[in-house]
Amino acid sequence: MDANQFREAAHAAVEDVIKYYESLGERRVVSDVSPGYLRPQLPSGPPQTSEPFTAIQRDIANLIIPGLTHWQSPNFMAYYPANASFPSILGEIYSATFTAPAFNWLASPACTELETVVLDWMCELLGLPECFLSKGEGGGVIQGTASEAIVVAMVAARERYLRNKCDAEGLEGEAREARMSELKSKLVALGSDQAHSSTQKGALIAGTKFQSVPTKMEDNCALRGEEVRRVIKECKEKGLEPYYLTVTMGTTGTCATDRFDEISKVVGERGEEKDIWVHVDAAYAGAALVLDEYKHFTKDWNAFDSFDMNMHKWLLTNFDASCFFVKRRANLTHALSINPAYLRNTFTDSGLVTDYRDWQIPLGRRFRSLKIWFVLRSYGIEGLQAHIRKHVGFGKLFTSLLQSRKDLFSITTEPAFSLNCFTALLDTNEVTKEVYERVNQHGEIFLTSTVVHGVYVIRVVTGSPWTEEKYVRRAFEILVQVAEEVLSGKEDGLGTDLTKTVLSH
Amino acid sequence: MDANQFREAAHAAVEDVIKYYESLGERRVVSDVSPGYLRPQLPSGPPQTSEPFTAIQRDIANLIIPGLTHWQSPNFMAYYPANASFPSILGEIYSATFTAPAFNWLASPACTELETVVLDWMCELLGLPECFLSKGEGGGVIQGTASEAIVVAMVAARERYLRNKCDAEGLEGEAREARMSELKSKLVALGSDQAHSSTQKGALIAGTKFQSVPTKMEDNCALRGEEVRRVIKECKEKGLEPYYLTVTMGTTGTCATDRFDEISKVVGERGEEKDIWVHVDAAYAGAALVLDEYKHFTKDWNAFDSFDMNMHKWLLTNFDASCFFVKRRANLTHALSINPAYLRNTFTDSGLVTDYRDWQIPLGRRFRSLKIWFVLRSYGIEGLQAHIRKHVGFGKLFTSLLQSRKDLFSITTEPAFSLNCFTALLDTNEVTKEVYERVNQHGEIFLTSTVVHGVYVIRVVTGSPWTEEKYVRRAFEILVQVAEEVLSGKEDGLGTDLTKTVLSH
Repeated sequence: MDANQFREAAHAAVEDVIKYYESLGERRVVSDVSPGYLRPQLPSGPPQTSEPFTAIQRDIANLIIPGLTHWQSPNFMAYYPANASFPSILGEIYSATFTAPAFNWLASPACTELETVVLDWMCELLGLPECFLSKGEGGGVIQGTASEAIVVAMVAARERYLRNKCDAEGLEGEAREARMSELKSKLVALGSDQAHSSTQKGALIAGTKFQSVPTKMEDNCALRGEEVRRVIKECKEKGLEPYYLTVTMGTTGTCATDRFDEISKVVGERGEEKDIWVHVDAAYAGAALVLDEYKHFTKDWNAFDSFDMNMHKWLLTNFDASCFFVKRRANLTHALSINPAYLRNTFTDSGLVTDYRDWQIPLGRRFRSLKIWFVLRSYGIEGLQAHIRKHVGFGKLFTSLLQSRKDLFSITTEPAFSLNCFTALLDTNEVTKEVYERVNQHGEIFLTSTVVHGVYVIRVVTGSPWTEEKYVRRAFEILVQVAEEVLSGKEDGLGTDLTKTVLSH
Repeated sequence: MDANQFREAAHAAVEDVIKYYESLGERRVVSDVSPGYLRPQLPSGPPQTSEPFTAIQRDIANLIIPGLTHWQSPNFMAYYPANASFPSILGEIYSATFTAPAFNWLASPACTELETVVLDWMCELLGLPECFLSKGEGGGVIQGTASEAIVVAMVAARERYLRNKCDAEGLEGEAREARMSELKSKLVALGSDQAHSSTQKGALIAGTKFQSVPTKMEDNCALRGEEVRRVIKECKEKGLEPYYLTVTMGTTGTCATDRFDEISKVVGERGEEKDIWVHVDAAYAGAALVLDEYKHFTKDWNAFDSFDMNMHKWLLTNFDASCFFVKRRANLTHALSINPAYLRNTFTDSGLVTDYRDWQIPLGRRFRSLKIWFVLRSYGIEGLQAHIRKHVGFGKLFTSLLQSRKDLFSITTEPAFSLNCFTALLDTNEVTKEVYERVNQHGEIFLTSTVVHGVYVIRVVTGSPWTEEKYVRRAFEILVQVAEEVLSGKEDGLGTDLTKTVLSH
């Protein structure tokens, strides 16, 4: 493909992008293909010689798009959003063009420097404590996902814990190594029973135990300080060593926000034993911190060690752009730095530059700060705020709709940000499940469900840049119709009036 | 930014891409900015309101491009290549547009299904053993980097080792847990002293020890079976439990290829104790397997557990596209599967679909198979082969040039694929270092150096799609001129005739 062919293909691709977004409202939001649909439609191997772009483009339309679940659809109200946007796509084009596995500063200085700057911008935009800025001992780094951020935090926490203990005990050489092995086998990571599964998975990867800390429905599923204190004490009594805790702003299931005020006190009262690394997981809800009315959430985070939010959820930046901040970057580099001969250079040796490879699991990295920069500049602070405010508004609208039909729905946990969690009439798990499954089977909207302290709940959350009020109202209409049918024992009556899959464009 | 503004911006971006690639030969390959160059040129935070794309585009030209190290430049002969290509950029556009954190099949079926198909295509294209195809018990998955692939392999290896040992000992409940903790503290991962640092880093992340296995210059730095046998025995005698080994096709320093025939026998002779997971790291050189003349390398890989190569190094696909294959996918899912309520769905529960989240560290994932698919189809098998063959040819040309000036240069390890490693006259580390540093200071070409068994060597490797023979010959010319100057004690005479940085376009 030469430059002219690329120009022609790229222009065609741009039209595809525009048409795709403009047709989102008409497409079945969840693909209805069956498992294994694709392979029989593809050749058994790559072609011997070059195929024209038009052939690929045709297959995108006929084979790929029908197999997509449309996360950008205004009818996508499942999980949490995963925004893409025009400015972000433009950023991705430049990033791909400038491809460099920029593992250290010299490997592409702009890649490192822009990342440091835009992460500082994000730190201030979100109202995070100053300790997370790069000008002091902290700083931000783009991770692929909130899960990776947790693994990095956990490995840094583990190494800090072991180092501090062995230093305090004055151990060196073989005695130190033996003590480290002994301690390592006792380490336990903590997270509430509502924390994302990535905390448990992170503990598994880091090779430590995991202990869940209970929450209660009466606390709206928020993690309380007293429970943290109790579980730490219990662990210690069993000879275990708690070294890490995930606290959450906006849990995955119900968007609960943990009691940071209480938890920061519990951590604080450990005095010299500040041995537990506290990580704030705000993967989804962290985006709301662009609004001043949510910034109060951050006031106790000085007491914590790291923070992470995904711009690729609710902040208009396509996957992946997880913004991870630490209070002391030395804890990352102490844990993750390895410096072989082929990576040495005068800039790294000088200590004047940041080599982000030591802040993450992989060696190489993409130029992801470009898309964040493009998004921040194209929307401006006010544009980002308007986006979040719109969806918070949709969340409130949906709450009021639910409240208008108390004969059908019961709100289970406090609505938060853009999420509502509810059951169909009287908390009957079977009925709620039936409503949920019928709604999704029809496919005009896509919701997810979860089980919270034994209660089966339906979750509705908007976030797509393409959502408008009419889609929120229509979603509620569908829920009402299905709930009424289920509760009256009627057969499914929605079948005929729903949009069918659009197979190509 | 609305659709019309996006169209206009995207067309402008496409022109930027084309101009950037067409100007590569004229740009200083390594940026000459000083640490901290960027921040003073940027505002202290994001703008309050939207900025037009033209402002961003201007800053790309004036602020970002001058700070890039141009990995696509025909004068980039450092590290290993990191290819981008037009078809790959197009794939990235669709991937960003369809953004979905496709953690399970239902979250976007096409994303999972295309990945399974193209990884099978890759398996056959590279001539890997059938056991790595998805139709049996194996399969491929795209990881971000070869480092991530190693962490995944290592965690799977660790869990398999612990599970098998405890099963064999018939342990359950608390006794099993205690034994696991005990065993875990003794686990040791192995890799040759030439294996990439990611093996050591992986062991660190997985919380196990790492033991380096020596290679020798007389074996061309390849890992030998007898050394593996000896180190395993020594570890066992010290009470350690070797559970994992990285073997390499194309080591980072000198592109050595380990003796797979010998190592597979050592692993095989352990009989019932097939307890060591062997991972083939072919991050760079794996691309060469598209040529039939290299496929003999794979003949013993049936004996190994996993394989990884980066399409984003030498196979025309922009970062990130690391193709990771395992013989038994159950080893990944056993180690990494966690199934919370909010991720459950009938498809996952049916077991009929692949949920790649259980094959990797993160939960979410991008639609990276698109760009691999675009590249395979746009180039065709013959196009990919021609690309690799061209650079192998450049490697051979460079070898013959080195051989033509035995008065100046000495080849240290066998040239392999597109890499040549050499010293300046008589293995004098200081002289070689001086030559290396002078060449890079001038900046027309960019090389890297490394230290192999105490010898300081210069590495020259081509791989950019934009490299032509004249650049290879010119690189040699520069080396000759600098080496002659250094050896005759002359001052730097290259200063004036080298291309200076082009700051904008």
